[in-house]
Amino acid sequence: MVAPEIASTPEPPYYAVIFVSTQTDNLDGYHAAMDRMEELVAQRPGYLGMDSARSGLGVTVSYWSDEAAITAWRDDLEHSQVRELGRERWYGSYSVQVARVERSYRWSRS
Amino acid sequence: MVAPEIASTPEPPYYAVIFVSTQTDNLDGYHAAMDRMEELVAQRPGYLGMDSARSGLGVTVSYWSDEAAITAWRDDLEHSQVRELGRERWYGSYSVQVARVERSYRWSRS
Repeated sequence: MVAPEIASTPEPPYYAVIFVSTQTDNLDGYHAAMDRMEELVAQRPGYLGMDSARSGLGVTVSYWSDEAAITAWRDDLEHSQVRELGRERWYGSYSVQVARVERSYRWSRS
Repeated sequence: MVAPEIASTPEPPYYAVIFVSTQTDNLDGYHAAMDRMEELVAQRPGYLGMDSARSGLGVTVSYWSDEAAITAWRDDLEHSQVRELGRERWYGSYSVQVARVERSYRWSRS
């Protein structure tokens, strides 16, 4: 396995969208849709990166330069269609929290 | 497996601490320390809950009523000792981001 990498983020302030989810047993089309969303989101102006893990809960935090970029991505047509599929099929429940990052700190074994 | 549960959070504003980490191959004492930290943090005034997952990266988001509660927990002696152990032993790298949650949304299959 390639060692996972922690997202690089700029000096605060910037924004984080915290998406926490539980899944159903029906993941038809899920992985292809996630690959497509990762491809699309990476092209978004204001998108800074993402940290994500799943073990029971899925916890995905995406980073953004400003709130307008978050809202524009939320309203993107293809993203909205995938969100609808998620509600119909993949997710049991989820929460979305939009937060302004005020301080950050990073440590690495040298 | 018990179905995982998404943390319940109050109406914004409140605070989130986003902790993202990579691990080493030496997890000696890690799980016992995490159990102890979960026990301690749950007793903290201002602690609201936590969402956590690990798959390669670990992504843990804890929720707090205010920044003073976050700082007090950061400075807790036993927590500080465990953080030192983490740097010596368990973690390859980590980031900590303190953010003010401004909007939140929750969906659940009914």
